[in-house]
Amino acid sequence: MQSKVLSLLLGCACLSTLALARSANAQVGYTPTFNADGTVTMKFVAPNATKVQIVPINKPNGLFKTDIAMTKGDNGVWSATFKPDRPGFHYYNINVDGLSMIDPGATLYWGLFNYTPGLDVPDPNLDFYSLKDVPHGTIRYQLYNSKVTGKTRRATVYTPPGYDKSTDKYPVLYLQHGASENEDSWTHMGKANLIMDNLLADKKAVPMIVVMDYGYATPPGQPVVPTTPDGRRGSGGPGGRNPNTPGNPFEQVMVTELIPTIDREFRTLADRDHRAMAGLSMGGAESLQIVSTHMDLFGSMGLFHPGGTGPFDPKTSFGGTWANTEDVNKKMHTIFIAAGTLDNLYNQNKGIHTSMDTAGIKNTWFESEEAHEWQGWRKDLHEFAPLLFADKK
Amino acid sequence: MQSKVLSLLLGCACLSTLALARSANAQVGYTPTFNADGTVTMKFVAPNATKVQIVPINKPNGLFKTDIAMTKGDNGVWSATFKPDRPGFHYYNINVDGLSMIDPGATLYWGLFNYTPGLDVPDPNLDFYSLKDVPHGTIRYQLYNSKVTGKTRRATVYTPPGYDKSTDKYPVLYLQHGASENEDSWTHMGKANLIMDNLLADKKAVPMIVVMDYGYATPPGQPVVPTTPDGRRGSGGPGGRNPNTPGNPFEQVMVTELIPTIDREFRTLADRDHRAMAGLSMGGAESLQIVSTHMDLFGSMGLFHPGGTGPFDPKTSFGGTWANTEDVNKKMHTIFIAAGTLDNLYNQNKGIHTSMDTAGIKNTWFESEEAHEWQGWRKDLHEFAPLLFADKK
Repeated sequence: MQSKVLSLLLGCACLSTLALARSANAQVGYTPTFNADGTVTMKFVAPNATKVQIVPINKPNGLFKTDIAMTKGDNGVWSATFKPDRPGFHYYNINVDGLSMIDPGATLYWGLFNYTPGLDVPDPNLDFYSLKDVPHGTIRYQLYNSKVTGKTRRATVYTPPGYDKSTDKYPVLYLQHGASENEDSWTHMGKANLIMDNLLADKKAVPMIVVMDYGYATPPGQPVVPTTPDGRRGSGGPGGRNPNTPGNPFEQVMVTELIPTIDREFRTLADRDHRAMAGLSMGGAESLQIVSTHMDLFGSMGLFHPGGTGPFDPKTSFGGTWANTEDVNKKMHTIFIAAGTLDNLYNQNKGIHTSMDTAGIKNTWFESEEAHEWQGWRKDLHEFAPLLFADKK
Repeated sequence: MQSKVLSLLLGCACLSTLALARSANAQVGYTPTFNADGTVTMKFVAPNATKVQIVPINKPNGLFKTDIAMTKGDNGVWSATFKPDRPGFHYYNINVDGLSMIDPGATLYWGLFNYTPGLDVPDPNLDFYSLKDVPHGTIRYQLYNSKVTGKTRRATVYTPPGYDKSTDKYPVLYLQHGASENEDSWTHMGKANLIMDNLLADKKAVPMIVVMDYGYATPPGQPVVPTTPDGRRGSGGPGGRNPNTPGNPFEQVMVTELIPTIDREFRTLADRDHRAMAGLSMGGAESLQIVSTHMDLFGSMGLFHPGGTGPFDPKTSFGGTWANTEDVNKKMHTIFIAAGTLDNLYNQNKGIHTSMDTAGIKNTWFESEEAHEWQGWRKDLHEFAPLLFADKK
């Protein structure tokens, strides 16, 4: 049956040799369908299975609170129609008789150190991250040599609409993903480019370059993706950084390799007043650590549901770089801390804000009704970006 | 067991809530390992399975001639070590008790209208597509509005090293993927950017912009990926183009929307002498059709293992645009036709070359010992690009 379908798929008769050669044993995907009533229909081909379920990841604050049973139909095609609990981006897997499988019909995203199926459930009340008919910036991949890691690294760079035709210099936001993700996450899951396009079209933010680098830095000879001692992908092994350790390889990459590359290859305002760093979860901890220890390089900071920061005390943390409140308030233009009310990290995140307030450090607090998830980080960026580089307004 | 491993994966204790929430039911991937003796080791987690196989796609000219049995080890981890038959990029799937699965440890590529595991087996004798320490061009994503399709489309654009710092105008190669692929294929599987970087470093080609668009154009209201009548992804439905039909939506996109966008957004030499079109398989057929019917726009053409061209007769095909040999030889700067000796399309491909030779149309023929596969298309681009835009040398 699958062979027959794939022969049809490739359409043109003259391509049938290719189709036949490839059809053997290929899993054929059904793209999940959003229905007019707000439900979603998913289908999955498993002719010999006895039990097939859609398993939301991040329960109970994911796609759905429980696993969703699929029903077997003709030709071994299982299906389910359900109403997602909540809008936003949610991971899921398909479980077939106890074995977790990637849904080949899904759009896959690099998360959990794996390609993982994701469903982006529209929020009918929000369109700040939608693709609209406005001028679009460009996403570029910047390759650069890294002696720290012994590898060529790749950064994703957003240049705002008009960059190519202009001769202006632009401020730069360094924007980091979370644990188990990569330099595509902020555009693939986060829609950072669309958020910036829309903010710029509404004149709510100043044009800026956004640099989204890969947040791991494994030593020379080690795989790009950190590997656990037992050989699986994960952050347990070398390069799976502890964000609290000053001088860690990612910090070295950022300070000695990435920033110089961006300032050389792009028209940047290459000073601390026009350079910000922000990140989500692990990227938030990276931002706190790197900004704290390099206030000569960064004048603004955003922490989006930061994870792995440990306790923060402005008087003592990071060798006391935050201890002089007057000096900090003069130097730091924007400090932004965000958390989700459904996030287990909420109290820890709020603690950073409270400790800054207590010390008299000017900062902006933002919370939204999300768990540890992309819908929250999208909102965080949408709130944070307009605060940046106010002197350019 | 998987929960335990994933808890380790995310490392930092403070992230354990996230790790625990996500670990439920997630499949954990092992990255395939290339061993020093030329073998590959793959692992796959399936504790309850009774038979697990690696199934090469495109047998017998793929990764391996037959399916490869995996052996069950501790903790439900199956493994196999084997020596790939041939270098180059090859798709495969994992078959678990009769069900085809995506290997989450693999790098996945958009092919067969699905994300499909691929293994890029190095050729110890070839390095023209390797990542080297040479100046790198930039890959950019250009969004553009398309009235033909009622969608915002995305083209991948390679700009050569030095483009940003220069004020020069550049010639443009439009380079198309094959059936079931997309605008990422030429960089993800084809390594087109690295091939160009290396050619330019060796001064074997002139700096050019390479535009890799999405080769399907579905009507307004239809999904971006063409869908078959039964709802699966495939080219059987609207927008699954027949490359031989002049006036088809993809041709309209290319001529009335894409070329004007590129000429507006990039510093191009916007004339036929400095514009080429090439493509592989379906993209080859698209190139033949579009160049044949728009010789006013294109001065060079490359057909890489073209599929779906149908019979070609220079005297009569495409309304006779190739009929006047003297005129064609004056106008067309480079015509390049390539095929693989193991490709079922070899005879059909060679027929185009032979018919041009017979008619006296100047053309370059190139064949290599490949099937219908990326290793051949990489070689085709590597041979073709140096022939282009000779007046700029």
